[in-house]
Amino acid sequence: MKIFLKIIEPNPIRLNKIGYSFSLNIWGVSMGAINGNEFVNRINKLNPEIWFDGEKIEGLISEHHAFKGIIQSKAALYDLQCDEKLKKEMIFPSPKTGDLIGLSYLQPKTKKDLKRRRKMMENWAKLSCGIMGRTPDYLNSVLMSFASCAGFLEGKEKCFPQNLQAFFEYAREKDLSFTHTFITPQVNRSQIYIEHSKEPIAAKVIDENEDGIIVKGARLLATQGGLTDEVLVFSVGRFLFNEDEAFAFSIPSNTKGLRFICRDTFLGGESTFDHPLSSRYEEMDSIVVFDNVLVPWDRVFYYNNAEVAEEFVSKSSFHHYAKHQVLTRQIVKTEFLLGIAELIVDTINISEYQHVQEKLSEIIVGLETMKALLEKAENDASLDEWGFMRPNIIPLKVASNVFPKIYPRFTEIIELLSASGIITLPTEKAFYSEIQEDLNQYLQGANKPAMERVKIFRLAWDLTMSSFGTRQTQYERYFFGDPVRVASDLYKSYPKDSCINTVCRFLNLTSE
Amino acid sequence: MKIFLKIIEPNPIRLNKIGYSFSLNIWGVSMGAINGNEFVNRINKLNPEIWFDGEKIEGLISEHHAFKGIIQSKAALYDLQCDEKLKKEMIFPSPKTGDLIGLSYLQPKTKKDLKRRRKMMENWAKLSCGIMGRTPDYLNSVLMSFASCAGFLEGKEKCFPQNLQAFFEYAREKDLSFTHTFITPQVNRSQIYIEHSKEPIAAKVIDENEDGIIVKGARLLATQGGLTDEVLVFSVGRFLFNEDEAFAFSIPSNTKGLRFICRDTFLGGESTFDHPLSSRYEEMDSIVVFDNVLVPWDRVFYYNNAEVAEEFVSKSSFHHYAKHQVLTRQIVKTEFLLGIAELIVDTINISEYQHVQEKLSEIIVGLETMKALLEKAENDASLDEWGFMRPNIIPLKVASNVFPKIYPRFTEIIELLSASGIITLPTEKAFYSEIQEDLNQYLQGANKPAMERVKIFRLAWDLTMSSFGTRQTQYERYFFGDPVRVASDLYKSYPKDSCINTVCRFLNLTSE
Amino acid sequence: MKIFLKIIEPNPIRLNKIGYSFSLNIWGVSMGAINGNEFVNRINKLNPEIWFDGEKIEGLISEHHAFKGIIQSKAALYDLQCDEKLKKEMIFPSPKTGDLIGLSYLQPKTKKDLKRRRKMMENWAKLSCGIMGRTPDYLNSVLMSFASCAGFLEGKEKCFPQNLQAFFEYAREKDLSFTHTFITPQVNRSQIYIEHSKEPIAAKVIDENEDGIIVKGARLLATQGGLTDEVLVFSVGRFLFNEDEAFAFSIPSNTKGLRFICRDTFLGGESTFDHPLSSRYEEMDSIVVFDNVLVPWDRVFYYNNAEVAEEFVSKSSFHHYAKHQVLTRQIVKTEFLLGIAELIVDTINISEYQHVQEKLSEIIVGLETMKALLEKAENDASLDEWGFMRPNIIPLKVASNVFPKIYPRFTEIIELLSASGIITLPTEKAFYSEIQEDLNQYLQGANKPAMERVKIFRLAWDLTMSSFGTRQTQYERYFFGDPVRVASDLYKSYPKDSCINTVCRFLNLTSE
Amino acid sequence: MKIFLKIIEPNPIRLNKIGYSFSLNIWGVSMGAINGNEFVNRINKLNPEIWFDGEKIEGLISEHHAFKGIIQSKAALYDLQCDEKLKKEMIFPSPKTGDLIGLSYLQPKTKKDLKRRRKMMENWAKLSCGIMGRTPDYLNSVLMSFASCAGFLEGKEKCFPQNLQAFFEYAREKDLSFTHTFITPQVNRSQIYIEHSKEPIAAKVIDENEDGIIVKGARLLATQGGLTDEVLVFSVGRFLFNEDEAFAFSIPSNTKGLRFICRDTFLGGESTFDHPLSSRYEEMDSIVVFDNVLVPWDRVFYYNNAEVAEEFVSKSSFHHYAKHQVLTRQIVKTEFLLGIAELIVDTINISEYQHVQEKLSEIIVGLETMKALLEKAENDASLDEWGFMRPNIIPLKVASNVFPKIYPRFTEIIELLSASGIITLPTEKAFYSEIQEDLNQYLQGANKPAMERVKIFRLAWDLTMSSFGTRQTQYERYFFGDPVRVASDLYKSYPKDSCINTVCRFLNLTSE
Repeated sequence: MKIFLKIIEPNPIRLNKIGYSFSLNIWGVSMGAINGNEFVNRINKLNPEIWFDGEKIEGLISEHHAFKGIIQSKAALYDLQCDEKLKKEMIFPSPKTGDLIGLSYLQPKTKKDLKRRRKMMENWAKLSCGIMGRTPDYLNSVLMSFASCAGFLEGKEKCFPQNLQAFFEYAREKDLSFTHTFITPQVNRSQIYIEHSKEPIAAKVIDENEDGIIVKGARLLATQGGLTDEVLVFSVGRFLFNEDEAFAFSIPSNTKGLRFICRDTFLGGESTFDHPLSSRYEEMDSIVVFDNVLVPWDRVFYYNNAEVAEEFVSKSSFHHYAKHQVLTRQIVKTEFLLGIAELIVDTINISEYQHVQEKLSEIIVGLETMKALLEKAENDASLDEWGFMRPNIIPLKVASNVFPKIYPRFTEIIELLSASGIITLPTEKAFYSEIQEDLNQYLQGANKPAMERVKIFRLAWDLTMSSFGTRQTQYERYFFGDPVRVASDLYKSYPKDSCINTVCRFLNLTSE
Repeated sequence: MKIFLKIIEPNPIRLNKIGYSFSLNIWGVSMGAINGNEFVNRINKLNPEIWFDGEKIEGLISEHHAFKGIIQSKAALYDLQCDEKLKKEMIFPSPKTGDLIGLSYLQPKTKKDLKRRRKMMENWAKLSCGIMGRTPDYLNSVLMSFASCAGFLEGKEKCFPQNLQAFFEYAREKDLSFTHTFITPQVNRSQIYIEHSKEPIAAKVIDENEDGIIVKGARLLATQGGLTDEVLVFSVGRFLFNEDEAFAFSIPSNTKGLRFICRDTFLGGESTFDHPLSSRYEEMDSIVVFDNVLVPWDRVFYYNNAEVAEEFVSKSSFHHYAKHQVLTRQIVKTEFLLGIAELIVDTINISEYQHVQEKLSEIIVGLETMKALLEKAENDASLDEWGFMRPNIIPLKVASNVFPKIYPRFTEIIELLSASGIITLPTEKAFYSEIQEDLNQYLQGANKPAMERVKIFRLAWDLTMSSFGTRQTQYERYFFGDPVRVASDLYKSYPKDSCINTVCRFLNLTSE
Repeated sequence: MKIFLKIIEPNPIRLNKIGYSFSLNIWGVSMGAINGNEFVNRINKLNPEIWFDGEKIEGLISEHHAFKGIIQSKAALYDLQCDEKLKKEMIFPSPKTGDLIGLSYLQPKTKKDLKRRRKMMENWAKLSCGIMGRTPDYLNSVLMSFASCAGFLEGKEKCFPQNLQAFFEYAREKDLSFTHTFITPQVNRSQIYIEHSKEPIAAKVIDENEDGIIVKGARLLATQGGLTDEVLVFSVGRFLFNEDEAFAFSIPSNTKGLRFICRDTFLGGESTFDHPLSSRYEEMDSIVVFDNVLVPWDRVFYYNNAEVAEEFVSKSSFHHYAKHQVLTRQIVKTEFLLGIAELIVDTINISEYQHVQEKLSEIIVGLETMKALLEKAENDASLDEWGFMRPNIIPLKVASNVFPKIYPRFTEIIELLSASGIITLPTEKAFYSEIQEDLNQYLQGANKPAMERVKIFRLAWDLTMSSFGTRQTQYERYFFGDPVRVASDLYKSYPKDSCINTVCRFLNLTSE
Repeated sequence: MKIFLKIIEPNPIRLNKIGYSFSLNIWGVSMGAINGNEFVNRINKLNPEIWFDGEKIEGLISEHHAFKGIIQSKAALYDLQCDEKLKKEMIFPSPKTGDLIGLSYLQPKTKKDLKRRRKMMENWAKLSCGIMGRTPDYLNSVLMSFASCAGFLEGKEKCFPQNLQAFFEYAREKDLSFTHTFITPQVNRSQIYIEHSKEPIAAKVIDENEDGIIVKGARLLATQGGLTDEVLVFSVGRFLFNEDEAFAFSIPSNTKGLRFICRDTFLGGESTFDHPLSSRYEEMDSIVVFDNVLVPWDRVFYYNNAEVAEEFVSKSSFHHYAKHQVLTRQIVKTEFLLGIAELIVDTINISEYQHVQEKLSEIIVGLETMKALLEKAENDASLDEWGFMRPNIIPLKVASNVFPKIYPRFTEIIELLSASGIITLPTEKAFYSEIQEDLNQYLQGANKPAMERVKIFRLAWDLTMSSFGTRQTQYERYFFGDPVRVASDLYKSYPKDSCINTVCRFLNLTSE
């Protein structure tokens, strides 16, 4: 732990400005909300095992071309929470230590708390216009939701609620960041498939000893895998068939045997003119390999208990707080899309066409629907059995059904508005070359110089058509899983009785 | 009252003829909100000129087979407001007289007032499960919205705000009911069409004298035309090309020269088993003919002023209160649809199919979206310049874009779930004939006796496939006009600047 | 006519007489194709047990108000085939007797035969603009397809191919007409449902004796049930779970114990102005009850053989010839829809709007797609193992996937074009009453007198919004069963190998 | 011309193999269908002015990383036409010289000619699985269509039909390749916009002298601009507002003052494993700048004649032959998509899901629709006034309405089937690194080794989600222009009279 002490030690000058107080917590480290610099240093020191394009990353991860952009963008988030002006909206005093800590760790007990959380999340989302999918508040909220339901694990076999609670407090006080992973490899998605490979494919507990449990196998698609302090690993019931795949724990990214294998990068290049989004927000996704990883007992929340795995996610406030964060970000993103769409309309002067008006109104309808659902979820919030204020799940589930359908449609609308303009994309260099006069003359917009016009269209392209943009679309489409299942879940969980009874009464049915 | 009595008194004889009772009603209050009986008697006494299937209606309208059902259903609404249990939610003391009057006449000054109005409207909507399109609160709200903006007419040419205010109070205290009409005949819908017929087609002011203005021509589609105390006539700017088509007034349904020509009836029959909806809620639509109708001056709100006609509807709170009522009713109706859909799923046991689950979840998404938008409109309400609390128009406009698309889809879903079950519809008589055993055996449902199963499917059919049901679909689709225009209007009126600015800032555009 | 009476008399002698006797008909030919009068007389003489609105029909069925229209429309079909001008396209000499017989009974051996069949079917379809769903050629073709594959039954248990062949020839020479029924009651559509009722619900063979098999139970939805000479009864594999539900036979409509229970009528009225379609083409659907019906052995094609039931429909040319007929009719119907849509556009002068143009082009795309698929099916036809020319099934299956989706959309387009015009529908009587001047003035179209305008809109309404029209929509949607299953079937049966191999070659996959 | 002689002189060794005969044509050059080598040499020698990423390309274009792939792929096309096995399907003897020349230059006079043309185009399309959008047959066909209608220009002002005919023969005999350009810069797409810039933006004739006309300004989006022998420049009526923008001519790509400014490249990289499509088929699009370009008189087909510009494209066989080629290619592409989709289904074993079956059946429906329309266009072909056999335009226009809608949907289907599998994409290098065992274990498919699984998903990704793939989508969507206009055009040009007349007859309308 001493090493860690050094690692996270903040720059004293910045700290004074923000006015952090320092105390010792149970883990013996002084701490609180970090700034960007602290984040970057911490990640660099961690030095986890990351494989990119067939090579193991050596040197500072923050200077690797494939990760530089996203790490800077994340650092900016941490700086924002230390910003004097926004401080009040971003941090709060720890109930344990009094240290000022990140608001996404706040366990809400009132509707006002929920609104505070939303404001904090909005501020972070706005910094990337909703493009960064995994701002730290997402997984902070997930961990917070788990901890808030630690009571559920109480007295159940192979469950350690106290570990969960202690770890939550530790993470909160140190402002740890997370990735998570819960999808098993996509080998065979038949409903009746049961893995029978000799060597594990999906990660499994293959052994346990006095130090902890031993995990072997893989999990899919940890976004920002290797770029966070910790990996939160848990199981989602319906994908499980064996006890040994049922567990939840968190381990540092540099745990021995833990390996992040990156997909190909969707970074287009470093120019923010040419690649306004991917140069900043390419978050990377990784396959997470557990090569006989030892998970220490104090990091195990539960293991080898399929029933708990199935119930914990559905009965905890996981979906409530996770969806609350996601919806907040998606609204910011939709506003960004609307802005881009309207700017395109403006730039090539097509607002007079009825079908253009219809397309834009589609985006407006989607945006306002999401906003109304979010607000309703907050207004209809209620206390759970552990005393925490959960946003109402119905409007959140509805939004989770809506967004995966409208987001791809909105990107399509942007393409339809743009026509060839989204293809004819010269580079920044061309604007500073001998042919700049040609570009200035022939690529001008109705009311914009050529360079601004191209900037707008390159942004539209990077959002919808670059490999970065299309990954975003796929990401939003599958955020909470297969849209077909998401719809089924809404149907199954929705209370339909009062509607049925109305009809039965109307018809005088005896079977009511 | 006496002062007002004078103002609105068209002539003393008529009032006597109508024979308003100033007696005590069942809850012991003089005047104000009426009960069902009072409504029926009043309409029967009015005896307006209604033409149905080529014949002029003679005798009591409440006993005519084509109108009996709807008049009874309306009477039930008036009885409901006198119901001892619901009284508090349905009526309030007149600010003028202290009489208890209908809550749809309440001019809201607080958000709480808005919620009260919603509750009242919900109660009425629920009585017909949202099927009756023109419960009296709709046009009461319209008149209330006009009166609340009477100030807009102040000082404008050919405008009489005092008439509007006085008439509103008169109507409120007497609990008058209304139809309205604002669509000109659909002769030619080209954008550049200007009527050049020698004889007026669209209703026009063709003369004026000391008694009032003379109107000749027709207006389309007054729902329940002839079944209300009054006809509210006003103009909507965009359909106007001539000054003489620009006016607003209200006249009693039995005004001389006023003629209601009914469309063919969509009443299927009187059996509530066979025609559970049309037997009760066939509201009838009429063409309104003005055959040199004299509109007395004290009933004229404005005339021959196209500019005012255009602006009054858009600047007044018309859309706010009208949409607030409509959305409230549509939510009740959507709940009814969901209940029917789920009952069908249940009856033939198809809930296991993923595509069935998806279809039901579509309805749930639509319902919850509407509910969230309504609540947001109320939460974001604000005071207008005349001190009345307007629900926020944006969520209401969004809902007006959403419902015309989802309602037809939901009826389609019901058809898709039902398959042949919605066609194989024996009549009530068959269930009481020699072949009842056959029906009981062969038409049973998975968990329902045949008769209940057939009841459910007949309801589904009457809602979606009978000529009554399809008229409902068309009605919801066009409630606020051509969906293409409704979308354009949302686009044009929506504030887009902050979204554009976000993008401009992100791209460092100078043109922000 | 007396001779005919004898002919149809069901007794064993009749089968011997399959050479057929031989009166002169109006066009001087002995036997074979009948005319309208002959059809009407035959049906009247049959006098089957039909229950309508709880009453057993007595008297001449051709004079019953609920059946008059459709029987006249069917008679017109038979007259058409006797029309001197069209004769060549409608009839052909029997290969057995040389008598001129209906072309829908032709067993095609060449592509030219297919085109002849199509021409014949087109002629009949055009007489009702494609609205009559069950012109006799549909089931004639089905029977022809079965007979053409009688060889499939050869040597299989409880199969009687010779009965099938003999019956086909008998029907062909007598120009018999049919209804059929293959859907079991919609009690419970769960995939795992097995009927366990004590008394049969779905029709079953409950006994057999030396005269034949005894059938008890019901089948759903025989269109024109009771209005045809015969009922063709067969089983479709996937709905079967018991051997005793697996059979195929044909029996006269007046067989003892056979009962047709009509649904409620969708006839709007007898005026062809008010109800241009339902007054002529309301075909009625019935539940068919088998009340211990004895099916004579010589009418049994197979029974108690679930395997054959499953395979016969899928391996025979049933789908080929049935879909060929259906597609031909649907094209004629789509042309009718396009005509109506364009006439509406014209009447209210809205052709300038881009969204109107898009809607019309949608119909055009659908129409031309259907035409191209039909032609391709004929061009790619091939001989089956019994020497008959089958149209290619792929384009026909594609069309069966397309039409159930586009037809409802096209009716929606007609509604969207019409707006309130499709609601404001005065009756014929109103046009001949005192208010005719009002109607003539206020309901005129851009280039049409009011009466013609109303005729057009009433037609549009009767096609899309009357209970007759919506039943048509449901009928087209489900013509070949649940659209979800129809899509699955196309996927499963479509040859995908060459497409897969192309990709494998492109990628150098070893697994090709 | 001497320079050209050198340039195109084919390698004698290859020529002997293919067995070309050699004669002189009017332009004094010996020639005929070329092979890949000849193509590459010719383009390299041309050395046009191409700007890429702000730099003018120097050196051999065939070795430039951004163009290498596409040039090789084009060379393969030319080799294919010289392939001994396919020769008969690819080339034919020149009617002028007897030289064997490319079949896309064949002016069809019979339906058999059309089928030959289709076969030739299919062969070329299959070489790139339909991915290469501008195989040379596209513009060869366009030029052929223009020449076949040269008669239209006869006797019209500023028209030179003889130049067009002579140039066509020249191009045909030399097997020239083309790009074309007809879209003006997208400055302002308002309907009422007229350019009033001092300096031309859209290319204009600014002067003429004894040598030719002088053109200044730009045109948008020449695909493969600079990679073809010639640039065919013509005008499309509706985008024109000035006479001086109305012209048609062809000039060599290396004409003085002609400048191609490339957009950013969508080449992902050179590995065909990582970028199976973009490494081969990134075609590049360019802005074409005319910097006072002199077009010699003998290359001018017409100029300064707006009326001719408007009519020539619509009255010539341009759309017939262009769409015939495009549809042929799109069918090949759709088969490729179907293969990919089915291979994904297979690889992760999801064929049991009904919604998966529906999605695949959607692709099948689209594919078979396109095939049926193409065949119908050929079957219904007819001779034009100049004796050439035009495929029927209606089915081709229908297909042009269909494909822009289904192609994006099919790419969406592939994404929906793939879920995270289309994101988790390791590179080729990773498969040859230390972590290959991890990949082999964790990325295996249900019935495929990991490497093949990843190959399949990378192909799916490159087709639908890489910047190459999304440009393909936009390209197909806009191939024949704005889909809204394409729909309007179909509506306006479709013969609707017979459909209207059917309805009028049915209703006995006098106004027929």
